[in-house]
Amino acid sequence: MSRIIDAINGPGDLKVLTDEELEIVAKEIRDQIVRTTSHNGGHVGSSLGAVEIILALHAELNCPTDKIVYDVGHQAYAHKILTGRLDDFDTLRQAGGISGFPKPSESPYDVHPSGHASDSLSVALGLAKARDLRGTRERVVAVIGDAAISGGMAFEALNQIGQDQTQMVIILNDNEMSISRNVGALMNHFGELRALNEYRDRRDLVQRQMENAGPAGRFVLGWGRNAKDSVKHFFLPERTMIFEQLGITCTAPIDGHDIGQLRRVLRMVLHTHGPTLVHVVTKKGAGYEPAMNKPETFHGIGPYDAGTGTPVSKKSKAPKYMDVFGQALVREARLDGDIVAITAAMKSGTGLSDFAAEFPHRFMDTGITEEHAVGLASGLAIGGKKPVVAIYSTFLQRAIDQMAIDVALPNFNVTFCIDRAGLVGDDGPTHNGLYDLVYTRMIPHMKVFVPSDEAELVNGLHTALQLEGPVAIRYPRGEGRGVAIPEMPEELPVGKARVVREGDDVALLAFGTMVAQAEGAADLLAQAGIQARVVDMRWAKPLDEDAICEAAKTRLVVTLEEGVVTGGVGEGILCVLAQKGLQVPALVLGLPDRYVQQGKVCDLYREVGLDSESIANAVQARLA
Amino acid sequence: MSRIIDAINGPGDLKVLTDEELEIVAKEIRDQIVRTTSHNGGHVGSSLGAVEIILALHAELNCPTDKIVYDVGHQAYAHKILTGRLDDFDTLRQAGGISGFPKPSESPYDVHPSGHASDSLSVALGLAKARDLRGTRERVVAVIGDAAISGGMAFEALNQIGQDQTQMVIILNDNEMSISRNVGALMNHFGELRALNEYRDRRDLVQRQMENAGPAGRFVLGWGRNAKDSVKHFFLPERTMIFEQLGITCTAPIDGHDIGQLRRVLRMVLHTHGPTLVHVVTKKGAGYEPAMNKPETFHGIGPYDAGTGTPVSKKSKAPKYMDVFGQALVREARLDGDIVAITAAMKSGTGLSDFAAEFPHRFMDTGITEEHAVGLASGLAIGGKKPVVAIYSTFLQRAIDQMAIDVALPNFNVTFCIDRAGLVGDDGPTHNGLYDLVYTRMIPHMKVFVPSDEAELVNGLHTALQLEGPVAIRYPRGEGRGVAIPEMPEELPVGKARVVREGDDVALLAFGTMVAQAEGAADLLAQAGIQARVVDMRWAKPLDEDAICEAAKTRLVVTLEEGVVTGGVGEGILCVLAQKGLQVPALVLGLPDRYVQQGKVCDLYREVGLDSESIANAVQARLA
Repeated sequence: MSRIIDAINGPGDLKVLTDEELEIVAKEIRDQIVRTTSHNGGHVGSSLGAVEIILALHAELNCPTDKIVYDVGHQAYAHKILTGRLDDFDTLRQAGGISGFPKPSESPYDVHPSGHASDSLSVALGLAKARDLRGTRERVVAVIGDAAISGGMAFEALNQIGQDQTQMVIILNDNEMSISRNVGALMNHFGELRALNEYRDRRDLVQRQMENAGPAGRFVLGWGRNAKDSVKHFFLPERTMIFEQLGITCTAPIDGHDIGQLRRVLRMVLHTHGPTLVHVVTKKGAGYEPAMNKPETFHGIGPYDAGTGTPVSKKSKAPKYMDVFGQALVREARLDGDIVAITAAMKSGTGLSDFAAEFPHRFMDTGITEEHAVGLASGLAIGGKKPVVAIYSTFLQRAIDQMAIDVALPNFNVTFCIDRAGLVGDDGPTHNGLYDLVYTRMIPHMKVFVPSDEAELVNGLHTALQLEGPVAIRYPRGEGRGVAIPEMPEELPVGKARVVREGDDVALLAFGTMVAQAEGAADLLAQAGIQARVVDMRWAKPLDEDAICEAAKTRLVVTLEEGVVTGGVGEGILCVLAQKGLQVPALVLGLPDRYVQQGKVCDLYREVGLDSESIANAVQARLA
Repeated sequence: MSRIIDAINGPGDLKVLTDEELEIVAKEIRDQIVRTTSHNGGHVGSSLGAVEIILALHAELNCPTDKIVYDVGHQAYAHKILTGRLDDFDTLRQAGGISGFPKPSESPYDVHPSGHASDSLSVALGLAKARDLRGTRERVVAVIGDAAISGGMAFEALNQIGQDQTQMVIILNDNEMSISRNVGALMNHFGELRALNEYRDRRDLVQRQMENAGPAGRFVLGWGRNAKDSVKHFFLPERTMIFEQLGITCTAPIDGHDIGQLRRVLRMVLHTHGPTLVHVVTKKGAGYEPAMNKPETFHGIGPYDAGTGTPVSKKSKAPKYMDVFGQALVREARLDGDIVAITAAMKSGTGLSDFAAEFPHRFMDTGITEEHAVGLASGLAIGGKKPVVAIYSTFLQRAIDQMAIDVALPNFNVTFCIDRAGLVGDDGPTHNGLYDLVYTRMIPHMKVFVPSDEAELVNGLHTALQLEGPVAIRYPRGEGRGVAIPEMPEELPVGKARVVREGDDVALLAFGTMVAQAEGAADLLAQAGIQARVVDMRWAKPLDEDAICEAAKTRLVVTLEEGVVTGGVGEGILCVLAQKGLQVPALVLGLPDRYVQQGKVCDLYREVGLDSESIANAVQARLA
């Protein structure tokens, strides 16, 4: 059966469609999203929830002249489908395929990378300012979720938007759900508004008013703040919504799955002077039963059965690092009542669900607020607690200053458990944990542990909790190596490496995931008659100077890390060698000084030269 | 004449004083602050403005059991004087003396370092959470200014505070003035509230109510939200203030220089359940005419005449880097209409006042909002503008993620002008720019220029504005070297160093400020018969590999940078040497892996071994 979307070559084609036809398109888009993501995995819930918003926007705007900035761009699958990427949509999130996020290099319709939450309002304001400086009239729209708007950066932007009265439209996509259940007073506020306004009953009212106004009335430019008087029942009374007090005109909540209503409202606000916020209520996973019923599962999911929504069970060889961490922290917390756990909207993603269930008062999910999460940890540490902050490497970039100033400078006892360190695979460049070995290591007082397997993680966590001052532990996304997890965790000596394989020709000084690759490389090198020592360095800071000096007695020192070389721990090892006056050939291997794209991690290892074979080849080439 | 403060050994002694006596103490504290800062310099305006707030807090609280967290702790001079540091107060901000900021290692009354704005609410919430977990009852108070509360981190904290209804008191010190004039819709909102409530007339009313309530009524625990009903005219009607909508009980604005009123209000709110915000209106520089008249001058000031308030003019040998930058940017902007300048509440501090006057529409001060400032730059760059973001090194730590994700990943044209890079002197560890050479260098696509004098800064800025993609330029606080500033700026080759002195025994590869020290060291080494080459490396990224290979032909490669060695550019040079297979003795000099305390920069150079003499000695020791 032929589909309408197959005939859509660009968003301009939407303009001739009726609301009823657009509703059919919405269904076709949903089917396509489910079909593709059931094979490739992806961010299903938010993308299904935003279909009508995106359709209505593209029907009313003239993109790419007009600009849509998506906050947390994984909601934008419908946007990709409508802007010429339907034929490639089956390559979503695959190596060489289209990205799961907006990507300017992929399409002129993609304005901004949109990988980290809460940045859309700043970017949209910048675009609107550039437009006003130029004196042109294109429209700028930001689409932001209820969780993302609670991030501090979004508030900072709202503060300027309200002050400057810049013409732009903010679509608040309120689905009552971030990655985990939403938290924060702002969410309560949104809930009150929803209850207060019974938006569904309002629909008829607005419709009637619009009809009465007639087309001329609807499109009059310069309505501005007076729009409030003309459609009193549509906009909120002043000061009802928090953002009104910042000078932003806010609508009452409207139904985010009613294309006709969305288009009518957009027509009005796109011609309103100054900034307007459209409060749109949507349902995550809308139109696909399994995703509506299990919104957390369908936030980000691997392949699943499209009919039932059941995830395709992958045979796992070993537990995931995040789960090993979560269980280990529960065990530690049973023995030490001072341990508290903090995360920033990553409860299940960091493995803290069991901790939260067992110790509800000692668990704090602060929402998408990394800066505050680390500041909170600082206060808890002053108060005698032992906070454990679990945040992904890429998102902890938001709180480097707080790590340095609020925690490390006064030498407070905070443990940072940095998940998703290194390459993450399908999500691509915005989500890779490239920098944490650099940004933790640069900070005085900080100790940095890098477990090479699950048992090391358990022992490293136990060790960190016994130490004075801040400690960072960084570990990858995905499965461990399948080693036995210690019954009783062991306290590890600080700054001491362990030799996992002897050899005197070359020394492979490896961190974390690279220990396994180094062991594989050592096997390959042995076949070529080269005896490689493999050292699990364990601590990126302080470094084991003895192990480094011993390594310098071989013919080649090789450093291996899953993080950028520039500023990384390999360079730190070179510095130790220089300080000791040891001149020895060295090979510094790690992630390159460019952005690694999406793909399977094992393939990416090969691409960047961090798999066993590439390592063995590099060593042989260097020795030759 | 004997002073009351001389008899005060700790804040407990304040409890026996009457309000009238406390007013005398306030005057004595002001005299002391003016006397000391007129010699030492310091943050005068905010400290004079907060005297009564701090007196009232210490009169009502039992510190150090109760906790006061100061946001931007340079307002806390009165706190230092009242907590046993009067005798040492003349050593304020001097080497070995007391810090200009709260410092936990200095006093048990100092809870937190408080160097970067907007973190107090998170820290205070952490303290209150620790208290509630413990089940004790001490009070927690945060003192935060109207500018700091507009930072995103503060909003993130308010969102949780309102949600959790944690008992704590927030003193909003509203002086209508951050470092520069305040900006943002939130400030407009505060202004409306002030106008609306005519707080001065309210004073009598509250006083009467308190008297009527009697001591018992006043101290009843558990007033909670009902406090609103009992003292209707004192608290604001619900939803008048923005924070009310987050669930925080807010008072009407009260006079922050009326000790009696402050104490009465504190007595009430300290026993209110849940979070309360006390809106206190103060005058920056209160009680000292020159500071009230020139609040920007007296925000942070060097030595001045205590009688007239006239700054003691220091003979300057050369213009300041910030002024050279500001003038150079004005010249560039006259020729290129796409240049826009952004700062985050550092207009005069970054030298942008003239730019703002000449190009008001192309200048944007976003307030204390580094994250948003960089996001805004991203949007402006997409819109075809050339944004120049001028922020101090230590504060730009707040926006590393935005530099990486919003600007560098999509390779947008944004120039980061990083002022106050390296050691800043009197302000101490929270303000030193330790990390920027690490956090800029680690990011792919980023180019990093390090000018060694004023002319280099002018040429480097001109070059950056011609390049594609992001560029960072980092330069120090204070004066240049006094070189002539080029009439016509020159475009410099990217990634190319320049040899400023020939020599074949050792090679000093120096960045920025270290070029001058290297030249001095080369003079000293020449006296010892050692010919040192001095190379102004110019670019920390990309590095000049040819210059490094040439350096490897000498007996010793020395790298010199005013930034932490760990992760710094010296380690990067070692990496180039290793990649090239060059084994040569190397000495990596830079800031140590510990926090450098306050003092004169020239003295600090000696302390950390970065003055000419120490460098020459280190080279000789290494060659021996």
